[in-house]
Amino acid sequence: MLQIEEAVKQLQKQVTQKEHTEQMPLLEAAGRILAEDAVAEKDQPPFPRSPLDGYALRGEETAGASREHPAIFRVTGKVCAGEWFPGRVQKGEAVRIMTGAPVPEGADTVIRQEDTDYGEETVQVFRASAAFENYCPQGEDYRTGTVLLKKGRRLDGAATAILAGMGRDSVRVYGLPRVAVISTGDEVVPPGHPLERGKIYDSNRYYLCARMQEKGLRPERSMHCRDNAAELAGQIREMCEEGMELIVTTGGVSVGEKDILHETLELLGARRLFWRIDVKPGAPVMAAVCQNTLLICLSGNPYGAAVNFELLVRPVLEVLTGSRTWRLEKRQAVLQNDFRKKKGTRRFLRGREENGKVWVAAGNQASGALSSLAESNCLVEITKEMAGATKGETVWVYLL
Amino acid sequence: MLQIEEAVKQLQKQVTQKEHTEQMPLLEAAGRILAEDAVAEKDQPPFPRSPLDGYALRGEETAGASREHPAIFRVTGKVCAGEWFPGRVQKGEAVRIMTGAPVPEGADTVIRQEDTDYGEETVQVFRASAAFENYCPQGEDYRTGTVLLKKGRRLDGAATAILAGMGRDSVRVYGLPRVAVISTGDEVVPPGHPLERGKIYDSNRYYLCARMQEKGLRPERSMHCRDNAAELAGQIREMCEEGMELIVTTGGVSVGEKDILHETLELLGARRLFWRIDVKPGAPVMAAVCQNTLLICLSGNPYGAAVNFELLVRPVLEVLTGSRTWRLEKRQAVLQNDFRKKKGTRRFLRGREENGKVWVAAGNQASGALSSLAESNCLVEITKEMAGATKGETVWVYLL
Repeated sequence: MLQIEEAVKQLQKQVTQKEHTEQMPLLEAAGRILAEDAVAEKDQPPFPRSPLDGYALRGEETAGASREHPAIFRVTGKVCAGEWFPGRVQKGEAVRIMTGAPVPEGADTVIRQEDTDYGEETVQVFRASAAFENYCPQGEDYRTGTVLLKKGRRLDGAATAILAGMGRDSVRVYGLPRVAVISTGDEVVPPGHPLERGKIYDSNRYYLCARMQEKGLRPERSMHCRDNAAELAGQIREMCEEGMELIVTTGGVSVGEKDILHETLELLGARRLFWRIDVKPGAPVMAAVCQNTLLICLSGNPYGAAVNFELLVRPVLEVLTGSRTWRLEKRQAVLQNDFRKKKGTRRFLRGREENGKVWVAAGNQASGALSSLAESNCLVEITKEMAGATKGETVWVYLL
Repeated sequence: MLQIEEAVKQLQKQVTQKEHTEQMPLLEAAGRILAEDAVAEKDQPPFPRSPLDGYALRGEETAGASREHPAIFRVTGKVCAGEWFPGRVQKGEAVRIMTGAPVPEGADTVIRQEDTDYGEETVQVFRASAAFENYCPQGEDYRTGTVLLKKGRRLDGAATAILAGMGRDSVRVYGLPRVAVISTGDEVVPPGHPLERGKIYDSNRYYLCARMQEKGLRPERSMHCRDNAAELAGQIREMCEEGMELIVTTGGVSVGEKDILHETLELLGARRLFWRIDVKPGAPVMAAVCQNTLLICLSGNPYGAAVNFELLVRPVLEVLTGSRTWRLEKRQAVLQNDFRKKKGTRRFLRGREENGKVWVAAGNQASGALSSLAESNCLVEITKEMAGATKGETVWVYLL
């Protein structure tokens, strides 16, 4: 049976990062992906800067200075942050300077005001300072030409601050992929409506939309479709023609007569990539390409759909968005409790990982159950060879 | 000198979670904080459900059945997912049933169709099944009255799906706190404008706004103010009167004549909580209460402001929003490289943590430098007692 890793490769091959880019105001681009390298056009800081309040002068002239034998300088001016001192500091001269102000030409260090008499016309310096001792050189942070942020980088707080510091108030980012979500099933009723006997509320569509929105991607279309292959095919065809890059459906992928996805794909003339993978829950997942749109048809079981989304859809969204935030982080952790299962299936349990320890959710691990997902923060992999989870064993967990 | 932990306690004491709540459409509430317990009003599933396609019947009647000696049943009807079978399964009877359909009254198990002859009027069953073998009981996921999500919980994908599954299409969440950001300094120019000599671009305001927006909080006001205490006090007073709960400023907190925050707080008649804490960078941070508004006045150095924000402002936002996403996660990691510093200061370096290993950023660790923050994902704590970071040592890192 097809392994998850192979299925992911097949899916990722079908998509490419959106070529479309857009220029956005910097603060509205939070979380988006940079579509250009950010290269420094100026040194930062653009001038040598004083790190403190004091007196700018030539360090060599303070040699041997002490409280008993101060070095004395004529104060020729004052410069505050945001100002520019027009002259040059000559021998025997000092300029009063404030934190963040440009160190005037000719000076090579700043004497802390606490090491002086705070003089206004002349100043006594009580302590020797070497050249460049209290002095932030021009370009201390970065030099003109430095690549500060690479194309493909997510715009988090640090990246936004760096761009602002370069003087940029707008930025070129990649467009968001166009994604649609369709839940299927005659038994499925949208929340907020009355529930007739035999029906259940739609949680799958909400899981998928909320997971995407958590990471900044709002599905462009989101709907429910009843178990009618012609109707579903019509909806999908329309979305393909609209240019959707990815359509994710839930339900109808098993082998029964109500499993309409098989017929739907035929009606669409879609090229099937795979059906069924080696995973529990969510084994009957299916994938196909219709026109230029990738279809991923998830299990209808709520937890099965969730596992399918995390393991298969996220890697596709990683490619489509160019953003690593979609990558499922995998790490090793030591099991803190037991869970029995049959050998021979690769199973993903709900669990909670903290500092290298993982607890398999004590609650319901059934495919149809969602409540136990509430307190989980990872999927715990129980391999084919393992007859369950045993306390003390090291397993792979996939952080949600 | 005041320790960070004590400063955090003082700050958190000044704020409370917003009492104001609002009812929001479920999918628009992603990331918000639940202001009510979510209690199940129905069992989930609301009926016993078939986990597969087959025949619903009484398990005891299949005792001893095999391919050679099948048990034979009269098929009295059919039920698909979303339908309701009106009758009751009597002795000798079976009902054709599809995955997700309600198991009819009288039946207590479902025989997989692969274990039958797929009969339409009568069906031969080739395998014995115990009662409840293939049978998802009513309330398998949860029972009426179960508290599924607690007040104060963040609405992530799982929580959203659980609420949808309960039939909820809207949800009561806490209002967002009202926050303002002001950067100060005559030398500071908003990005997008020409840069005169002696000036630098404003990165602090962008860092703060972007960090808040990353976690779903848009500051209601964000502005720059020049070094004029009366002007700044006027702006802050207006924001307090508007009902801002938190105002974060940057710059002007040191000891020089341009450090206008001291005078500003006096003009406002604000009650000072503290000034200066034991941290490098960002030591001169200041906090005060003005009317009912908490003011936190951060260092003007870009990295100092960032450290102040992460260590002091985030814990305040955790209380104001009621959301753990603001909590700075602390973990231990083993240093992979060296960094020298003087003893006697508690310092936070930029670093990159992966799987319990941490690298101190090789680039610039100066307070005014931002570029090295781009590749960092944590702050590395170097305690007062440590003379730097030494490869192989275990340190605390604070994940950004």
